[in-house]
Amino acid sequence: MLVAVLGTGMVGQAIAGRFDELGHQVYVGTRDPVATMIRTEPDHLGNPPFPAWHEQHPEARLATYADAAAAAELVVNATPGAVSLQVLEAAGAEHLDGKVLMDISNPLVFTPGGPPTLFVKDDDSLGEQIQRAFPGARVVKALNTVNATLMAHPALLAGGDHSIFVCGDDAAAKAQVTEVLTSFGHTDVIDLGDIGASRGVEMYLPVWLRLMGALGTSRFSIKVVR
Amino acid sequence: MLVAVLGTGMVGQAIAGRFDELGHQVYVGTRDPVATMIRTEPDHLGNPPFPAWHEQHPEARLATYADAAAAAELVVNATPGAVSLQVLEAAGAEHLDGKVLMDISNPLVFTPGGPPTLFVKDDDSLGEQIQRAFPGARVVKALNTVNATLMAHPALLAGGDHSIFVCGDDAAAKAQVTEVLTSFGHTDVIDLGDIGASRGVEMYLPVWLRLMGALGTSRFSIKVVR
Repeated sequence: MLVAVLGTGMVGQAIAGRFDELGHQVYVGTRDPVATMIRTEPDHLGNPPFPAWHEQHPEARLATYADAAAAAELVVNATPGAVSLQVLEAAGAEHLDGKVLMDISNPLVFTPGGPPTLFVKDDDSLGEQIQRAFPGARVVKALNTVNATLMAHPALLAGGDHSIFVCGDDAAAKAQVTEVLTSFGHTDVIDLGDIGASRGVEMYLPVWLRLMGALGTSRFSIKVVR
Repeated sequence: MLVAVLGTGMVGQAIAGRFDELGHQVYVGTRDPVATMIRTEPDHLGNPPFPAWHEQHPEARLATYADAAAAAELVVNATPGAVSLQVLEAAGAEHLDGKVLMDISNPLVFTPGGPPTLFVKDDDSLGEQIQRAFPGARVVKALNTVNATLMAHPALLAGGDHSIFVCGDDAAAKAQVTEVLTSFGHTDVIDLGDIGASRGVEMYLPVWLRLMGALGTSRFSIKVVR
């Protein structure tokens, strides 16, 4: 499959790398490919610069957001929530029309001295904002409830015996994303319903952040016991 | 132990019943004990009226919020979030001073035609509001992430192999609540830190509600896999 992963950070690298490993043709979308390819410093979180990742994944192609989205059958939004709408605007509504758009973003606001908050919540969500802004895209919210490693390689934790969620308005799109997640190693993909359920999975972030603090690691997940 | 459970609804009955089963002396707090004892109709959710519960638990004593709180060593807020601050006001700050106050409430607003929303969230929480309003109480948020049956009898689901959370500013109070939860059958009590973590467990409600819809039951929980 031809996949565009928008975003070159930790999440983008993890997802693009996983698609590449699984034999898909991957286009990694970025604002300015030249600028991205001459980075030599780790990002502010200490993640390796994109060129180091690219050396490990030489078959993946770096392109502008628009070129990546235009080439792809499936588009993944792996950008920070605060810039996701702008990035998708740059990708171009015409390049998203009719395509499955897997949205991993979280609407987090990082404030010094306090816990992150959400810039949209409760009566709306980023997943819904994206679907409204790009009505031709078939948005499926997924994967935002675990760290980048577990998004891509869930089997690294308890052999994959934990749960992940999808939601969206298009049943066929959700089925396709569920197939992708299963190919990644996710064993329990729960369909939460329409894109409005993005509110729920995005508002899960504050307890995820507290759990990370309590457990001293981001390598954890939840299993829905029923 | 002398326990006051404030609230006579589904959650209050489940928690008071569990304490009673375990041999504690239980005071159930209500606004107007006479009015509560002459109820003959199920509540708006179809739960049996309090007198039916009381027949099964004759040793539990019904009292005003204030009398129940005054008598107790440990106080449980099992009232709907929308009225919790008023109920605790009626119980009386002087009867809460120095006591462990286990807060189960959720700040839900039920609106016709849409999903419930939260009347406080993200930069504050009901748990924090209660702690600020009653600075002498040792507030521990707990149990708000599962239904009433699983709060009281977690072993009914997967033998109790799922997780529950506590948070609060007083370590000894959290230890006491953890002991209570363990006596109920909770096998994995996770301390999320100070009372600010109430934001996280309260904002979990929207995904809980979606899961209830997807699974067709409220008898589910999550296990934190790490």
